[in-house]
Amino acid sequence: MSMYNACIPQMRKMLKNLAAWIDKAVAHAEAKGFDPAVYLTARLAPDQYDFTRQVQAAADSVKSAAAHLAGREPPKHPDTEKTLDELRARINTVLEYVDTVKEADFEGAADRWIKLSFLPGLRVRGRDYFNEMALPNFYFHVTTAYAILRHYGVDVGKRDFIGSMNLEPDPEAAS
Amino acid sequence: MSMYNACIPQMRKMLKNLAAWIDKAVAHAEAKGFDPAVYLTARLAPDQYDFTRQVQAAADSVKSAAAHLAGREPPKHPDTEKTLDELRARINTVLEYVDTVKEADFEGAADRWIKLSFLPGLRVRGRDYFNEMALPNFYFHVTTAYAILRHYGVDVGKRDFIGSMNLEPDPEAAS
Repeated sequence: MSMYNACIPQMRKMLKNLAAWIDKAVAHAEAKGFDPAVYLTARLAPDQYDFTRQVQAAADSVKSAAAHLAGREPPKHPDTEKTLDELRARINTVLEYVDTVKEADFEGAADRWIKLSFLPGLRVRGRDYFNEMALPNFYFHVTTAYAILRHYGVDVGKRDFIGSMNLEPDPEAAS
Repeated sequence: MSMYNACIPQMRKMLKNLAAWIDKAVAHAEAKGFDPAVYLTARLAPDQYDFTRQVQAAADSVKSAAAHLAGREPPKHPDTEKTLDELRARINTVLEYVDTVKEADFEGAADRWIKLSFLPGLRVRGRDYFNEMALPNFYFHVTTAYAILRHYGVDVGKRDFIGSMNLEPDPEAAS
């Protein structure tokens, strides 16, 4: 299994899914006649990140995974978003960054030693960084963002979460 | 990157983390003097799975991933759990099943065509099944279970979610 394929196309797709949930949140607010900005500070627990911070963290987890596995320094994106449009723009900024990371940049990524600023004095192999931290952390923030919208009435379901899949007709199936 | 390593050890660990969150939920309920069974039917939205069903779905997603990628039929586990202890037992049943799936059983898993009963007439490559469905679906249910507990006051945090990591001292770090 290619590390690049496990990481980049799937994270790209999920970020686009997240942007689509924001569209659904706006549509829900407009249908109900309330300000969609309500979602910006919605949260599930008083000491948990609100929706804005969940989206920022989801976006950050993608840029960090792409950068670390490609042996680059992740770009800095200050957390200044104050509107849903700005959150969409943050997502797009990461999608554009991720497009600069090519499959060839992932050469040797699984074995690369990665050092993280919040784990001083330690290092982790690329494959472990990806499986044990980058991916769980990414899904954590994406799912929590989804759960916040779901909790606050937005009509999102599992299909919106999973998004498109690489299926094909089964040639052995009865027609 | 090995498909087996991306799947089995990480899903095992996360299921054990989930069991530990249940322990924290019980401790929270006991400290506050309410029946921990309250968590069984806790949910974030009226038309979303409750905690019981999230744990069952998380457990199912692991057994299904392990079985499909090993070219086996997943075992059936009826959704009959009525207590948190029974949910723990459901998790343990899956952990025991997963132990019967060995690394050699994953030989060729990335290229294996997989057919799913809920996608009749279609097939998906093992790698796509894992990256696009099994793993997102797994993290979806695990994170939602976590979010329900978090919403209902349980003292779980990101470290409880991520769990142990394969870190080692950085030989280049200043001592």
